[in-house]
Amino acid sequence: MTETAAGLLKARPLPLDTFRENVVMLARDNAVLRPERLAGARRVEVKARGITILASPVITDDRALLGADEIGLPQPAYHRLGVAPGERVTIAPARPPKSLDAVRAKIRGETLTPQMLAEVVADLVGHRCSDMEVAAFLIACASFMTAEETLDLTRAMVDAGTRLSWGERAVVDKHSIGGIPGNRTSLIVAPIVATHGLLIPKTSSRAITSPAGTADTMEVLARVDLSADEMRHVVETCGGCIVWGGRVNLSPADDVLISVERPLGVDTAGQMVASILSKKASAGSSHLVIDMPIGPSAKIRDAASALRVRKLFEFVAARMGVAIDIVATDGSRPVGRGVGPVLETRDVLAVLDNRPDAPRDLLDKSVMLAGRLLEVDPAVQGGRGEERARELVASGAARAKLDQIIAMQGPSPIRAELGELTHVVTAQRSGHVAAIDCLRIAAVARLAGAPTDPGAGLLLLRDVGDAVRPGDPLYRIHGVEPSEFRFAVEAAEEASGFALETS
Amino acid sequence: MTETAAGLLKARPLPLDTFRENVVMLARDNAVLRPERLAGARRVEVKARGITILASPVITDDRALLGADEIGLPQPAYHRLGVAPGERVTIAPARPPKSLDAVRAKIRGETLTPQMLAEVVADLVGHRCSDMEVAAFLIACASFMTAEETLDLTRAMVDAGTRLSWGERAVVDKHSIGGIPGNRTSLIVAPIVATHGLLIPKTSSRAITSPAGTADTMEVLARVDLSADEMRHVVETCGGCIVWGGRVNLSPADDVLISVERPLGVDTAGQMVASILSKKASAGSSHLVIDMPIGPSAKIRDAASALRVRKLFEFVAARMGVAIDIVATDGSRPVGRGVGPVLETRDVLAVLDNRPDAPRDLLDKSVMLAGRLLEVDPAVQGGRGEERARELVASGAARAKLDQIIAMQGPSPIRAELGELTHVVTAQRSGHVAAIDCLRIAAVARLAGAPTDPGAGLLLLRDVGDAVRPGDPLYRIHGVEPSEFRFAVEAAEEASGFALETS
Repeated sequence: MTETAAGLLKARPLPLDTFRENVVMLARDNAVLRPERLAGARRVEVKARGITILASPVITDDRALLGADEIGLPQPAYHRLGVAPGERVTIAPARPPKSLDAVRAKIRGETLTPQMLAEVVADLVGHRCSDMEVAAFLIACASFMTAEETLDLTRAMVDAGTRLSWGERAVVDKHSIGGIPGNRTSLIVAPIVATHGLLIPKTSSRAITSPAGTADTMEVLARVDLSADEMRHVVETCGGCIVWGGRVNLSPADDVLISVERPLGVDTAGQMVASILSKKASAGSSHLVIDMPIGPSAKIRDAASALRVRKLFEFVAARMGVAIDIVATDGSRPVGRGVGPVLETRDVLAVLDNRPDAPRDLLDKSVMLAGRLLEVDPAVQGGRGEERARELVASGAARAKLDQIIAMQGPSPIRAELGELTHVVTAQRSGHVAAIDCLRIAAVARLAGAPTDPGAGLLLLRDVGDAVRPGDPLYRIHGVEPSEFRFAVEAAEEASGFALETS
Repeated sequence: MTETAAGLLKARPLPLDTFRENVVMLARDNAVLRPERLAGARRVEVKARGITILASPVITDDRALLGADEIGLPQPAYHRLGVAPGERVTIAPARPPKSLDAVRAKIRGETLTPQMLAEVVADLVGHRCSDMEVAAFLIACASFMTAEETLDLTRAMVDAGTRLSWGERAVVDKHSIGGIPGNRTSLIVAPIVATHGLLIPKTSSRAITSPAGTADTMEVLARVDLSADEMRHVVETCGGCIVWGGRVNLSPADDVLISVERPLGVDTAGQMVASILSKKASAGSSHLVIDMPIGPSAKIRDAASALRVRKLFEFVAARMGVAIDIVATDGSRPVGRGVGPVLETRDVLAVLDNRPDAPRDLLDKSVMLAGRLLEVDPAVQGGRGEERARELVASGAARAKLDQIIAMQGPSPIRAELGELTHVVTAQRSGHVAAIDCLRIAAVARLAGAPTDPGAGLLLLRDVGDAVRPGDPLYRIHGVEPSEFRFAVEAAEEASGFALETS
């Protein structure tokens, strides 16, 4: 009996969806594997048409559901194998992914070679790692990772995906490290820079631990899941775009890592640098401005951490051929007034429309960052970038450019209206606002449903320094789902995130 | 609309088995949760009869399988909720388990308070953590954990399970740290000690990363999944037992941790100490001998690591009220000749039967360890324990005691015959055996199917120091499943684990 003969089952698509994890269904008395053999490792290797995936098996006792000679394939396993119904599929007890040796070495405190990191990335991209294995890799790297390992991981991640090329032209980009609610400068910076004439093919992520990523917010205005070809068309027409990176297949390993980082709520320096630079290098960026907010509740809390992260960015970026400019910014409070996709687009449009009530902090920060990028153009005099950026907003040119980009990317497929459930959080005593806790504000906005519900979030009604009296509104919570909205209200009433001091 | 009204679905048991993970099935158009809300966190909170579990949802489009007002419950979710078909079940988007904050703190490098560790343990025992969350906790702890944290984790693990009490009598136990193939001394030590008259209520684990745990090997001879009451009955009759700890509910959190450690193949010092001491303290042990093999391919590789682990054991054991005696042993080579459950029982029985071909190293090590325990008895003169142990083997009393324990525990429910697929690995050149790599031997035996197939494993035919000529047998591989057997043979031919040096 050869393994192949033993391992053959007929593919049967099942009307089931298991999200990201590969799951396959087997009859308890299936012709190939006794279920008790799976209790320990709990993974099977599934092969068809030269593609191998690892999957978690589910055992069924229902003959109507599945025969002993069949393998049930829910989505995404069915899609990833690419077989037709009835086609022969081979299964075998899974050997752990080869890269698990590298993960174990990392857990023991060893540094990984470029080849080991490439193996890990290949297994991630090939969907051969279970969530627990991805988590083990991430957390092992979180405890310590050398700059060389971060570089090698970044390179492996770039090599495992699509790489865009834009010829000889300067290609600029900006990225915010995040952690600051409402910091939606990309939607303002990209149109300014594109209007000026530099290429800015901006790919962005969805939120990891925040209530909105740039992609989540842009999706309120336009479609963001463009393919690489569609993205290229938009950039060649408009000079810029603001799309979600996942569909473009830039650094797909990063998407797998993020799918585990997100529910775990972890985001470490090495992973952050590898994630950002693998995306930017894949997108073909030659110049990159990093907005690095520093504050007591930001991702970067103090000057020492900022220096460490800066050096890591500089080390990796230089070797990836990306000119990098890291700007330390104020991370002590949210930017703008809205937190959550719909509310943040309102701030962005107010700024680009030059409305008198537009949040000034968002305008000032956006033109400062855009100015840094504009100075990549030899025609822009050193120190005059910010002024030029401000002119492009004031003239309405940036707004017109955003409209053009939105039109080219196409209409958003999601319903995105402001959440109708509202609750105003008020001051309990007199004083002035001494501080706003970014982590708490983000947590409340996430509990309210952002970014899953784009219309959920917070509208800040007071800023640091403002005087308040008992009963004065601090912010308004917007929600869509009653149960989540209630969690957010409970959390806000327990701790609002606003520190009031007696004046 | 209240959350309760919104969240109600009717329970429908499904003829599916998802092993350890809680999985529930929902119709795409179910009355409670839009599937897209689950793509990020991918977990739902399921409540019924005051019990709350977290589960991974699977979405179905098949109306015949599940109605919009139903929730499909495979095993083990159905069992853990304890509902009847049609009973009302509440579901809601899951908030991450509370203890995830503690896990994140650990990832950031903080030390955890006793309360935080108790929260983690409560979530583990309540099956509220996904595999990725368990992995994150384990790996975060692997990078650094203070002795106090290990103690607090151990205490929390004991408090979360059953604790046995044996009155005022001395209760002894032994535990081997593992990593040494064939090191099956417990099956010899327990009968010796029980015959002498000390209580030894031995609970043991199944293999984590090795080809056989004590429970796996004992299961070849007798039933091991005894309840706490059944175990007490055996111990009160025989003075000892050798059972699997899982069913006794001693430190159930440890079982959850092991279920993730096992497929990941990780086993760190802090976890090892917490795992072993939580089990032993829960079993009511007052005196414990730890067999700590040290060798280049053992779990403990050098004197420095041994000292660190020893100090950690001593620190935690003293505060748990367990008198501990840690014995450094030879971890440079396998013990006995068999590796794998069936083959190891053959060695054990040969020793207890005083057969001339019995492996002498297994006898010598067992009586040495048993002797240490016998000296807990004030009537045994200091330094005479080993001699007494040897007498109890030579007289056949220990063998009779093992038979009594086997009879009391009941017949094994598993088929356990020596694997009929065999392959002899031979020397490629002349020389003598300079070293045997324990890791490699264990890996080959595991590939062959041990311990899932109790009859799979290796029979060692040469020992360190033996002279060999080309073609001389080094060991025989036994297998049950052809595909796994082939993996083992391939691995052994690639690297046998035997280092030959020219004589």
